Amino acid sequence: MLAFEQKVRESFGRQALMATIAAELLSVAPGTVEIRLPFGRHLTQQNDFLHAGVITSVLDSACGYAALSVAPENAEVLSVEFKVNLLAPAVGESFIARAQVKRAGRTLTVCTADAFALNQGNEKLVATMQATIMNMIPQA
Amino acid sequence: MLAFEQKVRESFGRQALMATIAAELLSVAPGTVEIRLPFGRHLTQQNDFLHAGVITSVLDSACGYAALSVAPENAEVLSVEFKVNLLAPAVGESFIARAQVKRAGRTLTVCTADAFALNQGNEKLVATMQATIMNMIPQA
Amino acid sequence: MLAFEQKVRESFGRQALMATIAAELLSVAPGTVEIRLPFGRHLTQQNDFLHAGVITSVLDSACGYAALSVAPENAEVLSVEFKVNLLAPAVGESFIARAQVKRAGRTLTVCTADAFALNQGNEKLVATMQATIMNMIPQA
Amino acid sequence: MLAFEQKVRESFGRQALMATIAAELLSVAPGTVEIRLPFGRHLTQQNDFLHAGVITSVLDSACGYAALSVAPENAEVLSVEFKVNLLAPAVGESFIARAQVKRAGRTLTVCTADAFALNQGNEKLVATMQATIMNMIPQA
Repeated sequence: MLAFEQKVRESFGRQALMATIAAELLSVAPGTVEIRLPFGRHLTQQNDFLHAGVITSVLDSACGYAALSVAPENAEVLSVEFKVNLLAPAVGESFIARAQVKRAGRTLTVCTADAFALNQGNEKLVATMQATIMNMIPQA
Repeated sequence: MLAFEQKVRESFGRQALMATIAAELLSVAPGTVEIRLPFGRHLTQQNDFLHAGVITSVLDSACGYAALSVAPENAEVLSVEFKVNLLAPAVGESFIARAQVKRAGRTLTVCTADAFALNQGNEKLVATMQATIMNMIPQA
Repeated sequence: MLAFEQKVRESFGRQALMATIAAELLSVAPGTVEIRLPFGRHLTQQNDFLHAGVITSVLDSACGYAALSVAPENAEVLSVEFKVNLLAPAVGESFIARAQVKRAGRTLTVCTADAFALNQGNEKLVATMQATIMNMIPQA
Repeated sequence: MLAFEQKVRESFGRQALMATIAAELLSVAPGTVEIRLPFGRHLTQQNDFLHAGVITSVLDSACGYAALSVAPENAEVLSVEFKVNLLAPAVGESFIARAQVKRAGRTLTVCTADAFALNQGNEKLVATMQATIMNMIPQA
């Protein structure tokens, strides 16, 4: 496993929320990350759809780790802000969040991510995020 | 209890995620809603701060219910989109999300919400949301 | 010219701002629109870059018309909200905004758009927008 | 005139776009800025409302200068991103954008701003912005 993937997987492993919601880090490549989330009844809003905050959680983690995958070796990342459009009810057997770096800067990285609901092998776009992530470099 | 408050409390009670993260609906008034969230180790990101998606969950519910509190009697609400700025690490004994309606329209309502971390009685602003919520009115 | 393109070109022609900043509607296809903007010294901010509001103007028009290109025949469109990330200084001989529909709904359409600076034939990404547009259908 | 106000007014004076649209810097105080914009037929969209990009221009300048008013003495500011909700048609004799700093950090400052239409002395809220601004400090 390459250094950037190891760094991303190690950090993902320390996100207690991801374990709590049973999210799984599928793939990590330079500038792209995929996270899988099973549907869970305990994660829903009032209509039994997945709560927008849960979808946001995996989109945010996916964006952060996409940014981390191309960050300087000693950098950590921190979400500065994000915007989410909810495009369809989040109903499905499971969900996939796919993030990609749009532009990596020295201090700030901008990522976009889509969330898809999976039903019997079909994917449906349910949400999309545009996010700004900051590189935190420890001072010497 | 007035009708709008009953409607909000009943809907909040059906959001399984809110029970899962132990969030509590504090106050409901026309156009404003407060939600309390205790810190939980199982809800954190890699630095032991509350995950941005968890903060977003309570901000989103607060905005949705602020909109619902002023919506037509037969309307349901649905989040269209939101934008969150993360202003400080979400560390604290507990958190409060406070949402208010900025403009209520026939179809769309815009809300803003702030999230505060509480430590020994002190409040610190940790995140802020601007959200668009849609009134869903069942067809006759 | 097909009906949707005629509708888009006719509406663009009524946007006085587009003439004021010398923006030109390049291409219109179902769900995608391109607008060209020449650099203008009278449109700059304090560092002689194009002002973010000018870049936003062409991104917003591009998103609105991408949405209009797939809207019901009798619908007008109105921007509900947008979010813009400024990715690089807007310096160049001219600029191109390219918008595409991400999801077209009955009431709301979500579009994304990128703005590129052109210098000696090279394109550089300078800004990106995620926007929500509403279909306005005249009541019978 | 205090140093921060002088710095803001001098920078505003170099924004050619503000002169082009006849925008005027009304007030500058630590963390708040007001800009006035007269209505102009050459700044409209297809329904003769002010174009959303023009409203965004004054909201963005107001947020940037609110941030600059509290930035370190040697810092310049740059807009990182903003999100705008359009709340009502921008029709009026003139418009006022009012920005305030929500949180000033070392590197990033978050501001909010509202735009109001003025008609016969009445103010109506027409748009609201949430923005992230970066301090640019020249390297020694």
